Amino acid sequence: MADICYVYDFSEGSREQKDLLGGKGANLAEMTRLGLPVPPGFTITTHACRWFLTHDAEPPELRVQVTAALRRLEDALDRRLGDLHDPLLVSVRSGAVFSMPGMMDTILNIGLNDASVKGLADISGDERFAWDSYRRLISMFGRTVMDIEPSIFANALEHAVEKAGVASESELSADVLRELVEHYKSVVREHTGREFPQHPREQLDMAVKAVFESWNGDRAKLYRRRERIPNDLGTAVNICAMVFGNLGDDSGTGVAFTRDPATGSPGHYGDYLQNAQGEDVVAGIRNTLTLADLATVNPAVATQLAQTMRRLETHYRDLCDIEFTVERGKLWLLQTRVGKRTAGAAFRIATQFLDEGLITEDEALMRVSGQQLSQLLVPQLAVGTERILVTKGIPASPGAAVGQVVFDPQRAVDWVEQGRTVVLVRRETNPDDLAGMVAAVGILTSRGGKTSHAAVVARGMGKPAVCGADQLIVDESARTAVVHLADGQQLAINEGDFISLDGASGEVFLGEIPVSPSPVVRYLLEGMEAVLPDLDDDSAAIVDCVDRLLAHADSVRRLRVRTNADTAEDASRARQLGAEGIGLCRTEHMFLGERRELIERVILADNPVDRGLALEALMPLQRGDFIELLTEMDSLPVTVRLLDPPLHEFLPDRADLMVRVALGQASGQDTSSDERLLAAVNRLHESNPMLGLRGVRLGLVVPGLFALQVRALAEAVVARTRDGGTPVAEIMIPLVGSAQELILIRDELEAILAEVSLETGIELHLPIGTMIELPRAALTAHRIAEVADFFSFGTNDLTQTTWGFSRDDVEAAFFAQYLEKGVLTISPFETIDADGVGRLVNIAVKEGRQTKPDLKMGVCGEHGGDPESIHFFHRAGLNYVSASPFRVPVARLEAGRAVIEVASSDSR
Amino acid sequence: MADICYVYDFSEGSREQKDLLGGKGANLAEMTRLGLPVPPGFTITTHACRWFLTHDAEPPELRVQVTAALRRLEDALDRRLGDLHDPLLVSVRSGAVFSMPGMMDTILNIGLNDASVKGLADISGDERFAWDSYRRLISMFGRTVMDIEPSIFANALEHAVEKAGVASESELSADVLRELVEHYKSVVREHTGREFPQHPREQLDMAVKAVFESWNGDRAKLYRRRERIPNDLGTAVNICAMVFGNLGDDSGTGVAFTRDPATGSPGHYGDYLQNAQGEDVVAGIRNTLTLADLATVNPAVATQLAQTMRRLETHYRDLCDIEFTVERGKLWLLQTRVGKRTAGAAFRIATQFLDEGLITEDEALMRVSGQQLSQLLVPQLAVGTERILVTKGIPASPGAAVGQVVFDPQRAVDWVEQGRTVVLVRRETNPDDLAGMVAAVGILTSRGGKTSHAAVVARGMGKPAVCGADQLIVDESARTAVVHLADGQQLAINEGDFISLDGASGEVFLGEIPVSPSPVVRYLLEGMEAVLPDLDDDSAAIVDCVDRLLAHADSVRRLRVRTNADTAEDASRARQLGAEGIGLCRTEHMFLGERRELIERVILADNPVDRGLALEALMPLQRGDFIELLTEMDSLPVTVRLLDPPLHEFLPDRADLMVRVALGQASGQDTSSDERLLAAVNRLHESNPMLGLRGVRLGLVVPGLFALQVRALAEAVVARTRDGGTPVAEIMIPLVGSAQELILIRDELEAILAEVSLETGIELHLPIGTMIELPRAALTAHRIAEVADFFSFGTNDLTQTTWGFSRDDVEAAFFAQYLEKGVLTISPFETIDADGVGRLVNIAVKEGRQTKPDLKMGVCGEHGGDPESIHFFHRAGLNYVSASPFRVPVARLEAGRAVIEVASSDSR
Repeated sequence: MADICYVYDFSEGSREQKDLLGGKGANLAEMTRLGLPVPPGFTITTHACRWFLTHDAEPPELRVQVTAALRRLEDALDRRLGDLHDPLLVSVRSGAVFSMPGMMDTILNIGLNDASVKGLADISGDERFAWDSYRRLISMFGRTVMDIEPSIFANALEHAVEKAGVASESELSADVLRELVEHYKSVVREHTGREFPQHPREQLDMAVKAVFESWNGDRAKLYRRRERIPNDLGTAVNICAMVFGNLGDDSGTGVAFTRDPATGSPGHYGDYLQNAQGEDVVAGIRNTLTLADLATVNPAVATQLAQTMRRLETHYRDLCDIEFTVERGKLWLLQTRVGKRTAGAAFRIATQFLDEGLITEDEALMRVSGQQLSQLLVPQLAVGTERILVTKGIPASPGAAVGQVVFDPQRAVDWVEQGRTVVLVRRETNPDDLAGMVAAVGILTSRGGKTSHAAVVARGMGKPAVCGADQLIVDESARTAVVHLADGQQLAINEGDFISLDGASGEVFLGEIPVSPSPVVRYLLEGMEAVLPDLDDDSAAIVDCVDRLLAHADSVRRLRVRTNADTAEDASRARQLGAEGIGLCRTEHMFLGERRELIERVILADNPVDRGLALEALMPLQRGDFIELLTEMDSLPVTVRLLDPPLHEFLPDRADLMVRVALGQASGQDTSSDERLLAAVNRLHESNPMLGLRGVRLGLVVPGLFALQVRALAEAVVARTRDGGTPVAEIMIPLVGSAQELILIRDELEAILAEVSLETGIELHLPIGTMIELPRAALTAHRIAEVADFFSFGTNDLTQTTWGFSRDDVEAAFFAQYLEKGVLTISPFETIDADGVGRLVNIAVKEGRQTKPDLKMGVCGEHGGDPESIHFFHRAGLNYVSASPFRVPVARLEAGRAVIEVASSDSR
Repeated sequence: MADICYVYDFSEGSREQKDLLGGKGANLAEMTRLGLPVPPGFTITTHACRWFLTHDAEPPELRVQVTAALRRLEDALDRRLGDLHDPLLVSVRSGAVFSMPGMMDTILNIGLNDASVKGLADISGDERFAWDSYRRLISMFGRTVMDIEPSIFANALEHAVEKAGVASESELSADVLRELVEHYKSVVREHTGREFPQHPREQLDMAVKAVFESWNGDRAKLYRRRERIPNDLGTAVNICAMVFGNLGDDSGTGVAFTRDPATGSPGHYGDYLQNAQGEDVVAGIRNTLTLADLATVNPAVATQLAQTMRRLETHYRDLCDIEFTVERGKLWLLQTRVGKRTAGAAFRIATQFLDEGLITEDEALMRVSGQQLSQLLVPQLAVGTERILVTKGIPASPGAAVGQVVFDPQRAVDWVEQGRTVVLVRRETNPDDLAGMVAAVGILTSRGGKTSHAAVVARGMGKPAVCGADQLIVDESARTAVVHLADGQQLAINEGDFISLDGASGEVFLGEIPVSPSPVVRYLLEGMEAVLPDLDDDSAAIVDCVDRLLAHADSVRRLRVRTNADTAEDASRARQLGAEGIGLCRTEHMFLGERRELIERVILADNPVDRGLALEALMPLQRGDFIELLTEMDSLPVTVRLLDPPLHEFLPDRADLMVRVALGQASGQDTSSDERLLAAVNRLHESNPMLGLRGVRLGLVVPGLFALQVRALAEAVVARTRDGGTPVAEIMIPLVGSAQELILIRDELEAILAEVSLETGIELHLPIGTMIELPRAALTAHRIAEVADFFSFGTNDLTQTTWGFSRDDVEAAFFAQYLEKGVLTISPFETIDADGVGRLVNIAVKEGRQTKPDLKMGVCGEHGGDPESIHFFHRAGLNYVSASPFRVPVARLEAGRAVIEVASSDSR
């Protein structure tokens, strides 16, 4: 067998080889292949890393292959590593298939030692540059390869700056830097018991090994567990000849984007720093120049850069970002990748590429996501208002929240009771904070990420949250939080201060920034003409692009998109947002407010006559509700779910009532009416109401209840028909677990429909379907299909029973820990659990259609508005999803993307 | 196509043709085929009935075929239907495949009319007999064919008896009967607007049609729905020449059993009434003779009867019951079937047939059932005590209950609080009666059957119940119940009276009959020698037969039988009853009593140190429990389930605590300690605890909890090993929903095991398995199997989540209604729901074994002791079932029967 090749020169690979070369290595190879100016170098493959991880040693062939690659590099540049006069320096950078926080990143200037630093000084004619490079090497190497606490080097540097009496490290002299190098070397000696390695090849080998080992660092492992990245992929290592942007004013370094990643505006966009090295740009030490400035300073390089970016964009057919260095007037590209962008920019850039003929409409649609669209749909902090950025954390739950800061959940509850609006700020949250989280309009934490307790619970509640804002030092007992700013100043937030959160960007601002509705939503609801005058150019462009891509999604999608709506207002709004009907009208919401008294009478009635009277009084009210809904959704289907929750939900809380009765009795009051109520509450009390007397069970056990609702609906259909409307009503039975339940309730309801038809002379054809929201319904779908006109998957309840999770109880109690431990990768209430709940859905779809091939099937749980779940439902073969009104555009977009995704995975 | 044959002479059929001829017709044909003296006749097939039911008319061929059959009958007997001088009379009797209450039963004497009644008087020489026969025909025909209220005829008869001044109808003279016939005919005229049909063939055709139509009577339909008998089977109709037992002292009628169906004693057993017709025996008008008396009265007939019964038993190879008539010294058989018997008789008779060489051991085992055995295992009303039978209802839930009568659930609660023992007597129960049912030791209702609310709830609670005792007139407001006895006396039960119920026989007695433990259980626990002196012969025989058939079941069964036991006492008892290990030891029961305080401290601890101290204090206690269990079950497996319920179950009730705090505060007391407790209760409060923080979730979230239990178990194993025992402990993780949960908890627990092993130098090999009790666990069993050493199906919880039924809430709230409506045929908590829950079990077994072919699998839900469910688990391929101690013998028996059942259905 031939030796395995563990080392590829940049000139040998291509971007197709990400699995082998990692993302960075593959793109360096691709740029080299395109003839772009990339410093020569080579990549050690992920395969070598995997060998290392399995055997705890480098593959035996690796050393020789690296030697050969190094020799080729030296020959190409005509310099030798560690040469005393003109040393070759290299950088070592990790490069996994997926970018992964916690991995070792970069070591620059490998090849310098006590001897070659002098050669570098001579050949560059810049002694300061040489010693500064050596100083950087020792500190980076010490930190990342030799595990020395970073602050030791940082403190020594700070001390030197102070001692020299200069403003920043860039002003330190060569002599000071030489001393610093000596000090750094003594630090290495003290902390590791050995000298800083002087042999360049030893430096290189140690750095490569450190990269390999960083694959199994704690943070990297945790990240992989959370993101479900396999543990055995390994990382590649890139070794690249150094080029220097700090060799004078004709040198420099920069980062650039081929379009503006913030707004999506066309035209290049970037930062350039003269006479600097890469890390200086990131550190923000000096003010950077724009690319326009670069054109003035160095027009030839600017032109070459512009051409290069155009070349990359055309080649990658997407926004690219690059890192580049200019060494004495020559441009070098050090990295490129498809660039990250904001949600709005994603829509604009996809549309621009489409218009430029670089990508198809389908490809443009795949360049945006429902998650990005949803960021454009939530209310936003008003543009143009003055704002003071406090800090930026992890965008954990989108939306804007403005309120007074509290650090204590009980205070949150108290203040909200006083009518204030609060934002809860905590180091991190736990289940005891729940009441405070419910009270607050937004949540800010200094620890934890997207899967922390705060993030999970906030998303569950649909509440904006910024998490893991780790620059924020929260002192809960002192009721204050502090951020140390770059300029040494600090900024304090005290209890009662107003702050404004942007849960989509992770930004936190001081003060009350007005919240304005999303321009995209305003456009969809009010139309372009009404909205245009209020919009800046960027917003107007985004709105236009969203509109175009949504239109394309609509043209390709197979899934219909309905909405969950109980009121005429919601229905009207959802229709504007593109809903093609109502997939779930929850009738229990129609019994709230003033009507609660009537439903209470229905429940408390101790004889059929009283119950009948109360039901009759409810009838016209409910009929009125239905008429309004059917009017708003005229000619589109309206699926009405009959009463689902257990009856005691309409009665007062049992414990409160017990306290009231006990206190009343203790003080000698007449508590007989409360006692009667308590007796009824006790009678209806359930230890697990989720699994109790509700849904179809209630319909079968409480005479007249479902009949009332169906009569109201039937009469509403008649009224609309007489008014010339086209009502399309559907009746949906909740919580069916066996076909027999549906048979019995159908019998009763069809009789009512026939009655109303006979009374009014108007033919009624209302399909009667069922929710599939119990495992047993899914498992016996072939029988239920015989008597159902449609299926609607209630994936909220189905998730609760399949997992045995009561959402109200478990989400706050332990989901954060489950996400942390990797039991869950995402809450199964956010994205459908394909293995468990999804398997039941697939069983029900398949076996239901075996019985009735044309059975219409939809989903009306909250998953209907979740991007990943929508793809699942598309693949499962459902006919529609139903989402809350503001998720309708997201569902339309993702339903379109699902078609393209399936087509492209089929063609692969 | 040849005409379909709708009519079979008795001489044409056989007992194999039950589907076509119904049970009665097939057995009549079989007896005819055997040459036994059956009056000639013919059967109209179920096929004809089905045709009738589909087309609402008789099949066109039927009339001609009946005419032909009738002609053959007339020729055989040389009499004509409706003949003026010597008329042929026939009976018409329904006969479905399954016997079915609510169907039309029998019309005798068809063929009589105003003319032929005189011929009958002449030829029989008994005018009174002739008019009595005619009177009976009109009243039976009027009631069943012409739908006339039965009381009208009964009242007229009573009136005639009174007017004639005689004691009973049998003393009415021919003249009075002739007048009564006239009166009956006028009743028919008045109520139907037509004359009583004089044409014999018209009588016959109307009777046949009435039988067909009775198939769709309300009671029959209800019965079929409940018993899941298909609606399209139809019934057969038997037309049989009349023979008369009322033609003098050399005539008579009787019923007989080939062995004693009550005790199982060998030898014939029956009742005979001289000079009487069949219905008189049932009505109990006169005292009957025994078969021994018959031998004196009519030795020839007695000998023939005995020979016939022996012939039938040998032929049917089972206990038969027969109806017979002696007409002027000649024996006629009118019906036979395999006879019903008591549980004890079933065991004795099966063993007798085995010993007589008529059936094999396997067949003997199939002649008894776990349900019968379970009747023999419950405590019984002591034998030999004097007893007054009040009434007999439907045996709804087995066991003996003795207590004072209450008619009101609240009084039941109050009296029990005063220390009394009560039996709740109600017309019927509903969910509001629940507290009273919990308080009572037994339940008696006058309405409803085995699926009534009272029956379902009582079985769920394991409490004796007699239901549907419809002779009992319950007046709840007067707090009294009355039975009208046959002799016109009445017997009243008043509140506070003692009664004794036998839930296995349905008998209700006045007074306090002592309750004695079941002889079978005593025998199993104490051995034959200890028990024999206390037993009568019948009981001793039963015990012996149970022992023999259990031994055979043990020798053939593949399923192992374990027990659910948490205490050494239960474990020891179960082992005596044949348990081969513990399948479920619920450790939460070990935290009750005094230890509750410690677990409370674990819960309320607000820092790890306090929690650790409390856990440490629990450790030796739990270790002691385990040592006891492992000692009792030495060398047999003991599966310990780690803590399953949510923690708040160990804390006081939230509402009670709220009341206490509120009252304390109102009266100015210091409530701070209650408030602290309430805060903890509130923190742990869950809206649906069944679906909350429990099982493995608790183990993963509360540090040290599972570790404590596993350390206690490991140390117990070490202690037993050092004591020379052979402990076989297994660790079971509850509520696993995903493989990852099991991976994490295994990691933690294996570390503990390794620790204890290291500390003690004793190797520990404790398998760690999982319960499969969530749909998701079943659906992902292939993954869970990778990390589980065994599966144990928790079918209680699996039923709860698959159906979305909280047993605590739904069983009392609506199961009776669901059984009534046919949604359920039996509570899915009694017998596993094969279509839903069972499908999940099958998926998990199949896919779990695909991953690990030898994976041991058992069931530890209550279904493990249910006969039908045990058959399901055998077919599913489980390795063992685990049942509560007293269900262990039932499980052993049924596990054996399951093997034979599968083998015989495979060979078919």
